[in-house]
Amino acid sequence: MKVAVLSGGVGGARFLLGVREHFAGTGTEITAIVNVGDDMWLTGVRIAPDLDSIMYALAGVNDTERGWGRAGETERVSAELRAHGVGWPWFTLGDLDLGTHLTRTHYLREGLGLAEATRRITERWPLGVTLVPSTNDEIETHVLTAEGTMHFQEWWTRHRAAIPALGFEYRGSEAATPAPGVLEAIAAADLILVAPSNPVVSIAPILAIPGIRQAITDAPAPVIGLSPIIAGAVVRGMADACLTAIGVATAADAVALHYGARSRGGLLDAWLVDSADAAVVPVIEGAGIRAAAVPLWMTDPATTAEIVRAATAV
Amino acid sequence: MKVAVLSGGVGGARFLLGVREHFAGTGTEITAIVNVGDDMWLTGVRIAPDLDSIMYALAGVNDTERGWGRAGETERVSAELRAHGVGWPWFTLGDLDLGTHLTRTHYLREGLGLAEATRRITERWPLGVTLVPSTNDEIETHVLTAEGTMHFQEWWTRHRAAIPALGFEYRGSEAATPAPGVLEAIAAADLILVAPSNPVVSIAPILAIPGIRQAITDAPAPVIGLSPIIAGAVVRGMADACLTAIGVATAADAVALHYGARSRGGLLDAWLVDSADAAVVPVIEGAGIRAAAVPLWMTDPATTAEIVRAATAV
Repeated sequence: MKVAVLSGGVGGARFLLGVREHFAGTGTEITAIVNVGDDMWLTGVRIAPDLDSIMYALAGVNDTERGWGRAGETERVSAELRAHGVGWPWFTLGDLDLGTHLTRTHYLREGLGLAEATRRITERWPLGVTLVPSTNDEIETHVLTAEGTMHFQEWWTRHRAAIPALGFEYRGSEAATPAPGVLEAIAAADLILVAPSNPVVSIAPILAIPGIRQAITDAPAPVIGLSPIIAGAVVRGMADACLTAIGVATAADAVALHYGARSRGGLLDAWLVDSADAAVVPVIEGAGIRAAAVPLWMTDPATTAEIVRAATAV
Repeated sequence: MKVAVLSGGVGGARFLLGVREHFAGTGTEITAIVNVGDDMWLTGVRIAPDLDSIMYALAGVNDTERGWGRAGETERVSAELRAHGVGWPWFTLGDLDLGTHLTRTHYLREGLGLAEATRRITERWPLGVTLVPSTNDEIETHVLTAEGTMHFQEWWTRHRAAIPALGFEYRGSEAATPAPGVLEAIAAADLILVAPSNPVVSIAPILAIPGIRQAITDAPAPVIGLSPIIAGAVVRGMADACLTAIGVATAADAVALHYGARSRGGLLDAWLVDSADAAVVPVIEGAGIRAAAVPLWMTDPATTAEIVRAATAV
């Protein structure tokens, strides 16, 4: 069996731990198609936060207490960059993390694409999931605000999404093409999952790359999404600030309707909401999307595997 | 007063500490014109060993015990690169040092020249010496051996110069131009010093850049060199392996004659040898180069300042 998962970073990583756990021992090939809209060049180094968050979590080397980055991290290099006044002082560049960035930069400067660089980087650990960036091209999510337009990282990490977003741009996406393996994974999948990642800055930048949405529309596999909203609040992160900007309510049914039914030109065949949102199941089904309500809190891989099991049964 | 110093890395750094000490409080402007032939790209990062060695020494943040690099250094990032199998496992990339490399890479990727990047990097500390790279262009010293041609760093650091060198190439130097400030510093100098750096891989790559040798020939200031050879042995490093390759004996007078008298188309007006080599003073003077024998061991900045005082008096 083959499973393709559209995924952002930390939330996607947590979800993928459950996907891996659920399919463990079944010979299922899991491919994560990962957002790269948060990627950036910083002090000459290519940073890919979502790819790395997923890799670290699947490798078991992530910092589970802090919730992001590497366990046992230090910031020796970052302190030097601050002393020199370069880089973004508000953006943590851990030393172990920098090892990943430099490895990626090395491959990119050698002329390899991000997908091949990612393949080589992830070879270090037996992840049980194939990570494929959505594109080898450099696309950047920018946030429109009353104070001007800024890179997503600046809005998210520096300003903690406190400046009201007026909209989002996925710069470069119009001219981007899917990375090698993306369309193939979608076409070959027996199941396509949309992780409970941020719809606006994790999933949308993937779908903004010409060809990917169409491939999903044409895919023989069912497309099943999971709500990143539980009881009117985000599971993690600041997705509400993003949804508000694009006029979507912070609600499990609103996000489903935003994605839309595949039978009506949208993305989804089915949608899982949390038990707390069981009341909106009819609304979602009325929009042509099968729905079910189950506990959606991804507290640990075993619990998340149970969520994935529910997703395959909806 | 203005002093220009042609210099390599660690030996040059030690010499410059003495130059600074000697001229302290006199308002003398000291400019070090620094070799960049050892520079390289490694994992997408630009490394400039000679510039950094000098900067760290003048800033007082160098590792005096180990003799190179930063004091209190760690290698967290390097260990990650090794785990990923990229970079040169035999080339130490310290974390603090990497902060410098990333800062430089940041400026270079922004489109600045190495000279301007160096100016900004060195602003962090009151060095008392202006560091100017010999060129903004990328030149690379390569070593010809029976086992093939390799980058100087590979020959020097990996093989400890144990593979006999058959010759040296300063790749890219023919097309290189002096960095902004180099010709100006030479022309404006009241004194030009040739540091007791490696003649073959530190001083020669500077002189290989078209225009620099001519500027020195034309300069109004006296050109005074110091022998890197004492009693037939190198003061530090493996200059003997380099000199042998170009057919120059490891001897204080041989190096002077190799540089040649400025009055006869060479580089030098005067040359200092160690007291142990006093016997060769007449040989050097016979070649048209004023010479004197004084203690040349640069044991500390005060002793080195005394050497510089002797150089100004020869």
